[in-house]
Amino acid sequence: MARDERSQEHAREALRRCEVLAAISATDGAIERVYLSPEHARANATVAAWIEAAGMASWQDAAGNARGSYPAATEGAPVLLLGSHLDTVPNAGRYDGILGVMIALAVVERLHERGERLPFAIEVLGFADEEGVRFGRTLLGSCAVAGTWEDAWWGLEDGDGTTLREAFVAFGLDPERLRDAELDPATIVGYLEAHIEQGPLLLDADQPLGMVSGIMGAKRFDLTMTGEAGHAGGVPMRHRRDALLGAAEIVIAVEQVALEAGIVGTVGRLQAFPGAANVIPGIAEFSLDLRAATDVQRDQAWDAIKACAVEAAAARRLAFSEELRHEAPATSSDRRLSEAVEAGIRAVTGKDAPELLSKAGHDAMAVAALTRYAMLFIRCGNGGVSHHPDESVTEDDVALAIDAFEAAVLWLAEERG
Amino acid sequence: MARDERSQEHAREALRRCEVLAAISATDGAIERVYLSPEHARANATVAAWIEAAGMASWQDAAGNARGSYPAATEGAPVLLLGSHLDTVPNAGRYDGILGVMIALAVVERLHERGERLPFAIEVLGFADEEGVRFGRTLLGSCAVAGTWEDAWWGLEDGDGTTLREAFVAFGLDPERLRDAELDPATIVGYLEAHIEQGPLLLDADQPLGMVSGIMGAKRFDLTMTGEAGHAGGVPMRHRRDALLGAAEIVIAVEQVALEAGIVGTVGRLQAFPGAANVIPGIAEFSLDLRAATDVQRDQAWDAIKACAVEAAAARRLAFSEELRHEAPATSSDRRLSEAVEAGIRAVTGKDAPELLSKAGHDAMAVAALTRYAMLFIRCGNGGVSHHPDESVTEDDVALAIDAFEAAVLWLAEERG
Repeated sequence: MARDERSQEHAREALRRCEVLAAISATDGAIERVYLSPEHARANATVAAWIEAAGMASWQDAAGNARGSYPAATEGAPVLLLGSHLDTVPNAGRYDGILGVMIALAVVERLHERGERLPFAIEVLGFADEEGVRFGRTLLGSCAVAGTWEDAWWGLEDGDGTTLREAFVAFGLDPERLRDAELDPATIVGYLEAHIEQGPLLLDADQPLGMVSGIMGAKRFDLTMTGEAGHAGGVPMRHRRDALLGAAEIVIAVEQVALEAGIVGTVGRLQAFPGAANVIPGIAEFSLDLRAATDVQRDQAWDAIKACAVEAAAARRLAFSEELRHEAPATSSDRRLSEAVEAGIRAVTGKDAPELLSKAGHDAMAVAALTRYAMLFIRCGNGGVSHHPDESVTEDDVALAIDAFEAAVLWLAEERG
Repeated sequence: MARDERSQEHAREALRRCEVLAAISATDGAIERVYLSPEHARANATVAAWIEAAGMASWQDAAGNARGSYPAATEGAPVLLLGSHLDTVPNAGRYDGILGVMIALAVVERLHERGERLPFAIEVLGFADEEGVRFGRTLLGSCAVAGTWEDAWWGLEDGDGTTLREAFVAFGLDPERLRDAELDPATIVGYLEAHIEQGPLLLDADQPLGMVSGIMGAKRFDLTMTGEAGHAGGVPMRHRRDALLGAAEIVIAVEQVALEAGIVGTVGRLQAFPGAANVIPGIAEFSLDLRAATDVQRDQAWDAIKACAVEAAAARRLAFSEELRHEAPATSSDRRLSEAVEAGIRAVTGKDAPELLSKAGHDAMAVAALTRYAMLFIRCGNGGVSHHPDESVTEDDVALAIDAFEAAVLWLAEERG
């Protein structure tokens, strides 16, 4: 069988596996698979069989991550990590996270078929929680592996009031053994992750694959403007302390600041209270999500937005308050690992790899605390839509991604050999 | 007893009666009294006793309004109507509507105490539904009296799915006899209503009483901007179709247009969907309430706001849609009746009466279909707050209001006598 045909076959199998996992869902007719759920257990069992089929030892680690290990040519060699996540958001697409794990498996399967051993071992990681849907804290699976798990998280509760600790026990895991999931940085070569882009840039650029220069730093705030409710008829315009008007100014300011600074800023949630057509809003509650290439850019943007908010509040006699809900520092991919990804992409496309900055968070952010990383992005269809059933990739692009990811691994092996 | 002391006594009694009615509530610790409820029946029974104590014949009409009739000096004389409403919004204040009925009762009580008959009869009306809380349609009580009740309203449902027709029957009223509540315009002199201002203008002007030049025309819309939801990280700013940004521009535009046109405009309700911090809003739903001195002004303001909305939607590739939910034409108070109110105010304050345009709706709007009207406004405390437990008036202002309202009635009697 020619190389191209074999690639297409691997791509078809990777996509078939994405379909198999899509059917393991808490919701009929939609995809939803959260941390420490019955679906998580079924997905891990399914993936374990594929790990073994790729010639690897398979286990579920102390945090519920699905892991597989492929030996190096020599004992005691360091380990290259390949992975992504197996959990999903509610009403998810088929490929976010999942496809990256399937590509890693395909690469190892090829080595195994050829009986090829590299100067490093390979560990495939199917992280159990990246989305953070169940306990409101993202990246639990990769934080366990990176050794950045915080004891305070044990008390986090899901929507039913079950704590993370209780969910561990119910899933058959021992919270006391959590640290067994950790890796020792001294033994690690690095971490490579393939992932769908979750945006339109590769599609717009007519490129199947891209390399990721880094992952944006993010901050998320809950913001509130407080004024005074009043009769929509009785209170003259100039007497009003309309909280929604203050919030609307910030919504506009977020867009302006983001465009000027070349970052992304989103007000995804906004609600006016009491929320009656004939009552002036006394309170407006809204969210702000900021992501930038560097933490400095992100924080400068926040300073600019906050200045607008304070000014608008003063002008309108409103009270403005903020609560930081989430913070993730910007991370940069490793230069040498990225060279490997770049070389892999060039090997299959014959062209320079487009360089993308990831605005979405990924397991690589958490793994960055353990080791250096690089990422390969795969073009999305449907305008780049993600976190949605319309998420799509083509078989051709997946075949190229497997080839490029394999080539990146072999590039690292050659460099090290 | 001196005139002033007697006035204070009447004011104290009017305020005491407001307290008695405030205690007739569907909600413990708050005031809530809606149309055709057990509280409505208890309030009518209580008011009926006060009507009789003022020397009037008392009855509950076919729409549930509390009514009283004080005879003229001569039989067959026309009738002057005095009134306001007895129903409340949820978590209401004590005075909106109620105080106007109590003032009307005090004026008739004075005539009765003096044994004085005027060249017209007086009818006091305690309208049963002005706020429209239960069936979502305002002014049901006064529309029944004015003869503008629409048959389609019988099918209106409350929050529990009870129709207006069913509620009539449950209250002991006969829907077939509704027309018995109507008055014949040929027999009517006009309608005078005293009401709290529900705004800060008299407070700011340091004036206890004002005359109302008219009631603003109102329109209320449900508006929607529809764009496309997307990942708050993945979708670049310039690719977005953010529905909330379109809505925020309209919120700002409403204020600008209202300030420029000298009208009032309010977005009281706004919500972004799906409403997650990390998802670009695909839909923003919001309300618009517009009130202006003339229907032309109001409709010109809507045209300007709509033009902004259409432009913002086009620039942002959003769909904009509108639904008209409520419309009330502007009405002007009658010149001669207003002269009476003005004369009454001047008689008690020694000053020209400030002229106010009512931005809130009142029973007078509905009665305008039957006969000419004039209104007297009473200063509110607490910055003019209304539809709120903090609604307040002073005993001194209420004493002045009773005196002025009586003087207005006597001015009309003298003119006619």
